[in-house]
Amino acid sequence: MEKFDLIVVGAGPGGYIAAERAGSLGKSVLMIERDQLGGVCTNWGCIPTKSLLNSAKLYRHALESEKMGVRAEAVTYDLDAAMAWKQETIETLRSGIQFLMKSNRVAVVMGIAEFVDSHHVRVGETVYEGSDLIIATGSSPAVPPIPGHDLPHVVTSNEILSIGKLPASLAVIGGGVIGVEFASYFSSVGVKVSIVEMMDEILPMMDGEFAKLMRREMKGVEFHLGCKVTGITKDGVSYSDAKGNPQLLEAQMVLMSVGRRPNVAGLENLHLDIGRGGIVVDDRLRTNVPNVYAVGDVNGKSLLAHSASRMAEVVVSNLYGAGNQRMRYHAIPWAVYGLPEAAGCGLTENEAKKQGRDIVTATTQMRSNGRFLAEHGKRAAGLCKVVADAKTKVILGVHLLGPYSSEMIFGAAAMIESELRIKDVKEIVFPHPSVSEILKDTLFAIEHTL
Amino acid sequence: MEKFDLIVVGAGPGGYIAAERAGSLGKSVLMIERDQLGGVCTNWGCIPTKSLLNSAKLYRHALESEKMGVRAEAVTYDLDAAMAWKQETIETLRSGIQFLMKSNRVAVVMGIAEFVDSHHVRVGETVYEGSDLIIATGSSPAVPPIPGHDLPHVVTSNEILSIGKLPASLAVIGGGVIGVEFASYFSSVGVKVSIVEMMDEILPMMDGEFAKLMRREMKGVEFHLGCKVTGITKDGVSYSDAKGNPQLLEAQMVLMSVGRRPNVAGLENLHLDIGRGGIVVDDRLRTNVPNVYAVGDVNGKSLLAHSASRMAEVVVSNLYGAGNQRMRYHAIPWAVYGLPEAAGCGLTENEAKKQGRDIVTATTQMRSNGRFLAEHGKRAAGLCKVVADAKTKVILGVHLLGPYSSEMIFGAAAMIESELRIKDVKEIVFPHPSVSEILKDTLFAIEHTL
Repeated sequence: MEKFDLIVVGAGPGGYIAAERAGSLGKSVLMIERDQLGGVCTNWGCIPTKSLLNSAKLYRHALESEKMGVRAEAVTYDLDAAMAWKQETIETLRSGIQFLMKSNRVAVVMGIAEFVDSHHVRVGETVYEGSDLIIATGSSPAVPPIPGHDLPHVVTSNEILSIGKLPASLAVIGGGVIGVEFASYFSSVGVKVSIVEMMDEILPMMDGEFAKLMRREMKGVEFHLGCKVTGITKDGVSYSDAKGNPQLLEAQMVLMSVGRRPNVAGLENLHLDIGRGGIVVDDRLRTNVPNVYAVGDVNGKSLLAHSASRMAEVVVSNLYGAGNQRMRYHAIPWAVYGLPEAAGCGLTENEAKKQGRDIVTATTQMRSNGRFLAEHGKRAAGLCKVVADAKTKVILGVHLLGPYSSEMIFGAAAMIESELRIKDVKEIVFPHPSVSEILKDTLFAIEHTL
Repeated sequence: MEKFDLIVVGAGPGGYIAAERAGSLGKSVLMIERDQLGGVCTNWGCIPTKSLLNSAKLYRHALESEKMGVRAEAVTYDLDAAMAWKQETIETLRSGIQFLMKSNRVAVVMGIAEFVDSHHVRVGETVYEGSDLIIATGSSPAVPPIPGHDLPHVVTSNEILSIGKLPASLAVIGGGVIGVEFASYFSSVGVKVSIVEMMDEILPMMDGEFAKLMRREMKGVEFHLGCKVTGITKDGVSYSDAKGNPQLLEAQMVLMSVGRRPNVAGLENLHLDIGRGGIVVDDRLRTNVPNVYAVGDVNGKSLLAHSASRMAEVVVSNLYGAGNQRMRYHAIPWAVYGLPEAAGCGLTENEAKKQGRDIVTATTQMRSNGRFLAEHGKRAAGLCKVVADAKTKVILGVHLLGPYSSEMIFGAAAMIESELRIKDVKEIVFPHPSVSEILKDTLFAIEHTL
């Protein structure tokens, strides 16, 4: 029987980073994947959506840049070409992961992992032994049993990424990140899009003011908030509106994006504690079984690709590295790659208040920013908000809505993780002109002293 | 005679930030400007160039996005519209500065400042008294007395921003940031562009490998390195090439971008020490005259808008704030907003070696990055390089070439200013997928331990 220091089940951003990092430290590692290297992120999530969203952005640019001097006629969107580009991106990244595994001497087996016990995993006829086991099996789209949920025009984020033709209209059930990104994409390329959301606002992790602005800026999208879907027919979606009145929303295609559920089937032999969110873990990603760890969506702690990767690093560091690391969740950034983009890191004002913290905040408009004006004009929308501790002035949260948000937010993560105070960041020089300067301006808006 | 706590001469990013910050601290401030609020940066520098470069980027997108699904026919570039947009941007920002001055109760006088002595400045018939004086008079394009430099088709970065028609061909004398940005702009909108540079490489502040890649990626531009311009005629530029042979470069327009010289005329009555680079200052921006400070280009220390603003803050903090601040130059980012973009902060490998420092470095290709691939494909060029201290592993320099560089570099500035070590940044979570992840990957390339 082949023996390994570490067996990793699942090859998404939790699994492959765990395998790579452990391999790079000289450990013998087996990674088992039932479908595709890269998992949901690379194949049906982060990467394909960002590829399509970028093409939609370029399409809008081609349509809307006349005022800046770029005239184009007969601008059309070619879904086939966009899908082919997306597919090439995915395949390039999969090859990259394959290469990474090879260069770190990670054995990769494609197939379904059957857990024999906490040291043995079977794939087909072969049983492998591992001293340690990392479960990184991810999550799948939740499909609640709404009447009509199994009709052929009802899709999840998986199927919608390989449609051959744009629908005339799309109803999106659920206004979380996935729903909003697809709504942004489809409406930008000319599809009539509506979002039906049960809560009173979209994007629950986002500051309320930002979510409202996001809706306002998604001009092609109709929002139905506080609405409960009651059924789906071949013509569309029935829901009861905020006042409880029945409504019908016509749509050629329906995207079900109401959440994701952890992939915990088949783990029975391990006797793991499994809660509503997924496998129960502590802050070192340890399960109740001593040599078994769970990272990424399957533990339900933070359903983000980069959280999964970081969890993988914590586990590998504690197992084989110098580390005595714990997973910290307070400085994990998120981004919504819509049109416009938004991103955040740390506490929102509301979260801080709920925690009873004494805080100071300021919000600034990006239209005071030179580069933003040069690229978007004075009528464009953009916001930056900072939340800081009232006494120590340590930065607790940074929230952005506008261009480059997703590429700037790591800097905020660095500041929050390093516990920088407002006065520390005020002494840091930001390049001019850059949208990033809005962060510094917002700090001065909180505390104008020098 | 009207008396002020502070008189600021010059309303660029050094002057207006000094005035605003001092005003916000309750001081009485007079700002004098001979031309336009915002100075070179807002009117003839950072802002207009970024506006035009953005329109050029959009033009290239409209021309080149078919592979990603965006088809457009008859794509044309309308210089008049681009110039009008640029002008609107400038005017909006100027109004913004005016509003900022008003809301901080800064008196603004338009006119030429004549320095009577270190406490008195005359504008026209009126003499103003100030307890302290900040000179922020900036710099102007240097025009060396090359034969033909005064021909009508020879322009500087000032005049080229208001041309009414694109030239068929442009010779750029000088391959610094200004030359490279204009070359990037004009070649992107269809002008035949050549750069003649005296040194062996363009962009002296940039890592050599990055500068070489930058040249390679500016596909429409011809580079003549190690070449000395000997004269300009109505047909073009004569130069002696790297081997000393005379050459002729035909060009309809010639851009002189060989550097900038400090605006120090008219300062005689102050009896300031003035060196080759400009007014001599210490690390608190003090001149040899006790109550006179010099910030920005006029002191020649760091010819960047954001350096000027930071210098202004240091002076105001020391004069009226809590501060005992010194100007630090080691973590000032720079950016080249070309196509592609590049940015850097801190030491290059060469600079570190010249200082005799023991360093470790790694360079990674952006084509390993998910978002980069999704947006640019596997044949696109992008680099990230990190320089760190070999012993302490403190990050000393970060260098980027590729999309979003100018918006990511503030994060590197924060890390360098905070003296973060590689292992500190490895624990910071970067959002996936983002180009910013390349920085973390580069740190792992230096030190793969966990």
